[in-house]
Amino acid sequence: MSGNDRAPRPGDAPFTERTPRVVAAKRLTRRSGRDRAERFLAEGAQAVREALAWAAAGRGRVHELFATEVAASRNPSLVRDAVDAGVPVSAVTDKAAAALSETVTPQGLVAVCSPVDVPLRAALGSDVRLVAVLHGVADPGNAGTVVRVADAAGADAVIFAGDAVDPHNGKCVRASTGSVFHLPIARARDAEEAFAALRDAGLRLVAADGYAPEDLVTADLRGDLAAPTAWVFGSEAHGLPDEVVDGLDAALKVPIYGGAESLNLATAAAVCLYASARAQRA
Amino acid sequence: MSGNDRAPRPGDAPFTERTPRVVAAKRLTRRSGRDRAERFLAEGAQAVREALAWAAAGRGRVHELFATEVAASRNPSLVRDAVDAGVPVSAVTDKAAAALSETVTPQGLVAVCSPVDVPLRAALGSDVRLVAVLHGVADPGNAGTVVRVADAAGADAVIFAGDAVDPHNGKCVRASTGSVFHLPIARARDAEEAFAALRDAGLRLVAADGYAPEDLVTADLRGDLAAPTAWVFGSEAHGLPDEVVDGLDAALKVPIYGGAESLNLATAAAVCLYASARAQRA
Repeated sequence: MSGNDRAPRPGDAPFTERTPRVVAAKRLTRRSGRDRAERFLAEGAQAVREALAWAAAGRGRVHELFATEVAASRNPSLVRDAVDAGVPVSAVTDKAAAALSETVTPQGLVAVCSPVDVPLRAALGSDVRLVAVLHGVADPGNAGTVVRVADAAGADAVIFAGDAVDPHNGKCVRASTGSVFHLPIARARDAEEAFAALRDAGLRLVAADGYAPEDLVTADLRGDLAAPTAWVFGSEAHGLPDEVVDGLDAALKVPIYGGAESLNLATAAAVCLYASARAQRA
Repeated sequence: MSGNDRAPRPGDAPFTERTPRVVAAKRLTRRSGRDRAERFLAEGAQAVREALAWAAAGRGRVHELFATEVAASRNPSLVRDAVDAGVPVSAVTDKAAAALSETVTPQGLVAVCSPVDVPLRAALGSDVRLVAVLHGVADPGNAGTVVRVADAAGADAVIFAGDAVDPHNGKCVRASTGSVFHLPIARARDAEEAFAALRDAGLRLVAADGYAPEDLVTADLRGDLAAPTAWVFGSEAHGLPDEVVDGLDAALKVPIYGGAESLNLATAAAVCLYASARAQRA
């Protein structure tokens, strides 16, 4: 451990936005910087708490915690937990915290973490029953919200497949409200490879497709949703490409009973994943 | 009809952001302006199309349509429909369109509409089976997304109760993707009055409450969700106040099977409303 694995002490000059460690951390707000450093930022008390629990469980590592004076005094137990875990905690100015923040109202607490994603086969492990696959989902807020929904529905993993957003994107981490630290996340640039691995793991691949002829209630009544299932979701803007849908085991839509044309990605995912979770538990 | 109920013609000078009619319309981007004028703005081709259909059905009125040259040439049938319906269509500059827009990328099409909300008793009508109540929901994007979900789930009405966001807020209208024009919307500043009216309409009032001891799957298995139901949702930040929950007929949570603390408002509403819709149709 470095000489920094201690809480900031009165008299320590806080890091500014020009301090090299802050400058280095700021690069992690960009995908290229994250890819290069193999680290990402988790901002806010809740995310930092989840990151520390994730590291304590041996699933990853928190390299550093930056805290403004105000944030540190508001979250004394969190800072103490970090120090106890051997995480260097550094005081930063409000301006430095703002430089590290991707929100309009910086929370003054930012952890530098190792990536959460694991290899595909590790994410699927043994005895997986429910997986969410985000295929080509580019919007980080949508992706993070689906990670949260998948976590709530008890999914075993979330796979970011094809040309999808980086799960470590600040907006994705924030929208997940800590869930990126809860369940295994894997990235598979080659979606077909991911589908093959999911099939090998015994999962039925079901496209969530607003244009599918059959809806999930009909499929559920037939008992289909009780099977181990990987739900494949497309981007909100374009949905799933036809060639992807055609290659999966089934395609189901959420029934639309009223006048809306469709649901958004996160609400559709909530209905699909909860329908499976319930059928599997019945 | 005024001399303006015609499409813009070549040679017409487009309205600028200083043209009085544009200045007046811009005031509708603020709640005070909307309340005073009793009009609101619907932006983008989809929203304008839904607004024209809503007006054609005799449910409201589109007073005016502003269109940039590019937007008009991209949506010729929409402009023609507006003209055919006697709606004055005025060419505006890109800058004027930006002034009327609440988005980063103005769509160049903005309709001035009469309010969508109707009196509470009218919204409930006869034979209502499923209603969504937004209690004190302040975030317009969340509120609009719930309106969209309620519409998709076939709800009969959405009630904005207590100190809630204005359903005509630009972000709410946009997040609803046209659904504010589909199903009856009512505003009830006095939430207790709304609850009384909902009970009179034969609805069971159920709080969606993450802290409720019972979950909706258990209630559904008992047959409770098949009854005519008004789901009451609180704000994402604070949920429902205890005194509101205590005054309702039941409180149910969405079961959390994994590590997430909670669902966000829209995804929770999707699970709740779809559970009722399905139970009522079974």
